Amino acid sequence: MPGAAETPLCAIRWGGDHLRLLDQRCLPHDERWLVLPDWRAVAGAITDMVVRGAPAIGIAAAYGMALAVQRGAPRAAAQAGLLASRPTAVNLRAVLGRIAALPDDAVLAAAHAELAADLARNRALGAAGLPLLRRDLAERPGILTICNTGALATGGHGTALGMVRSAHAAGLPLHVWALETRPYLQGARLTAWECLHDGIPATLITDGMAAALLARGTVGACLIGCDRVARNGDTANKIGSLGIAVLCRHYGVPVYVAMPTDTLDRGCPDGAAIPIEERSADELRCIGGQPIAPAEMPVWNPAFDVTPAALISAWVTERGVWRLPFPAG
Amino acid sequence: MPGAAETPLCAIRWGGDHLRLLDQRCLPHDERWLVLPDWRAVAGAITDMVVRGAPAIGIAAAYGMALAVQRGAPRAAAQAGLLASRPTAVNLRAVLGRIAALPDDAVLAAAHAELAADLARNRALGAAGLPLLRRDLAERPGILTICNTGALATGGHGTALGMVRSAHAAGLPLHVWALETRPYLQGARLTAWECLHDGIPATLITDGMAAALLARGTVGACLIGCDRVARNGDTANKIGSLGIAVLCRHYGVPVYVAMPTDTLDRGCPDGAAIPIEERSADELRCIGGQPIAPAEMPVWNPAFDVTPAALISAWVTERGVWRLPFPAG
Repeated sequence: MPGAAETPLCAIRWGGDHLRLLDQRCLPHDERWLVLPDWRAVAGAITDMVVRGAPAIGIAAAYGMALAVQRGAPRAAAQAGLLASRPTAVNLRAVLGRIAALPDDAVLAAAHAELAADLARNRALGAAGLPLLRRDLAERPGILTICNTGALATGGHGTALGMVRSAHAAGLPLHVWALETRPYLQGARLTAWECLHDGIPATLITDGMAAALLARGTVGACLIGCDRVARNGDTANKIGSLGIAVLCRHYGVPVYVAMPTDTLDRGCPDGAAIPIEERSADELRCIGGQPIAPAEMPVWNPAFDVTPAALISAWVTERGVWRLPFPAG
Repeated sequence: MPGAAETPLCAIRWGGDHLRLLDQRCLPHDERWLVLPDWRAVAGAITDMVVRGAPAIGIAAAYGMALAVQRGAPRAAAQAGLLASRPTAVNLRAVLGRIAALPDDAVLAAAHAELAADLARNRALGAAGLPLLRRDLAERPGILTICNTGALATGGHGTALGMVRSAHAAGLPLHVWALETRPYLQGARLTAWECLHDGIPATLITDGMAAALLARGTVGACLIGCDRVARNGDTANKIGSLGIAVLCRHYGVPVYVAMPTDTLDRGCPDGAAIPIEERSADELRCIGGQPIAPAEMPVWNPAFDVTPAALISAWVTERGVWRLPFPAG
């Protein structure tokens, strides 16, 4: 019988002839599972943000291909449809590319393997970060984090929040300070929910409270995820990450990037070469469909920012703790 | 016929036998004026946040006393009731104290004088700051600001946003970057509304976007208000101010505190002596009554933070630009 470590929080469940996804749009208020009978339903769920986070999207798409094979749907059409469900997701393209090379009878096993590999990678990453946290949290048990980098964004365990899970499981006294992460509130909605779910001590604050928190001297480490890391270590992540990295430098708190190595883009020389997506104004002017600002107010809404490598203490990967220059591929 | 400069945006209007207040709870969506016939209605409006901002509250209370005199209400009861309407407002106590010393037939004139004095003070403050902004914005026209420090918070013109108004009226090219200012969203709701109202170029961003903005190098100055300034220059202001002050130091952008001199607390030695109000968890877990986080999620919700004097370039007052040590009282 598997113990707690073997049954992690996972938002993606294979049902034999369907895929079940925890609908992240309904969190934290409703824990609702959607039953997806075919690849088109999976593609729709990706487009509609039922599932988010690059690793989680890739895994869901792999199961979408397994459903296509089961139902006898044309694989090329399924692959194209799933790829189009989130055009900018690099991870999605890689997973679908790997599966395209396989015979029909290997696709479901490949989907299971994608999920298992992601989970194993995250646990290895969490284990690699443990000595850092053991040292940094010894006198200052606070961990500052932003956005959601947990089980919900991955095949389980998580990246930056996976480091927290590993440290918590190892018995380190710690306390998570979750930034709510406007405009999408992934911290308030998802990280808060995950911490409550797993019994990890945590407190929610607004993004503007990070400095007041750091000034109190109780935070020992800052853990962030990454959407793309350039060859020189410049790191693109959720908007707000740059700000907390600057604050952490000011207050002497180390910043660690939880980086599955496939997030490193060795073809990208530095942060200036990373394109930053700007999203719609209404995503900022409204919260949950409710307007909070004048409808005609101009808005700047970048989804990510780039933290220069100089502000980052280390990159924690499934292959160990990396510093600059990064090990060769 | 008065020009634009003589008819400023003001949320407090005397009606001859009543007071009219622009209901700030309804902004930016509805521009609704409440008609208040007596001092009890004024006290209720202060308690209910129809009017906010220490100077604006003081002026409204002064008119509340004028209504008490007009209606023949006992002045002592009116004064006690108005004072209790926002117990922590230092300014409110000072205004009511000045009025208590006056005969009945001088109270209305005193209320008018409080309003006029506040407006004059803010305009003098704005004029004092103009040379700073003329220099700092010459090559970088962006102004970063937080919360609402404008006409809505005062008798008109505003303090930090009053500096913007003065600079805009003087023809300086400028662009306001308004932080939305969670959890209350005074920036998104009120500063955005004021900038649109006055035709001041402005863009709304979330609090977490300040660093990405500053990294672009287009911001020439950061203007913040203050709730209380200690003798050594440590400055308490809306939560988030400390963070942007640290960021501005990192990016070489000056931080100016717009400080009416009555906000300086010469009895307070430093920031450590300034009590910081912590507000309810639900103010952070909900937006507009709508929950955004798990109801059982612990929250830290300080209303203010303290920016050390070392991070502040100057304090702009109605008596000129102050640096440390402050001039004697």
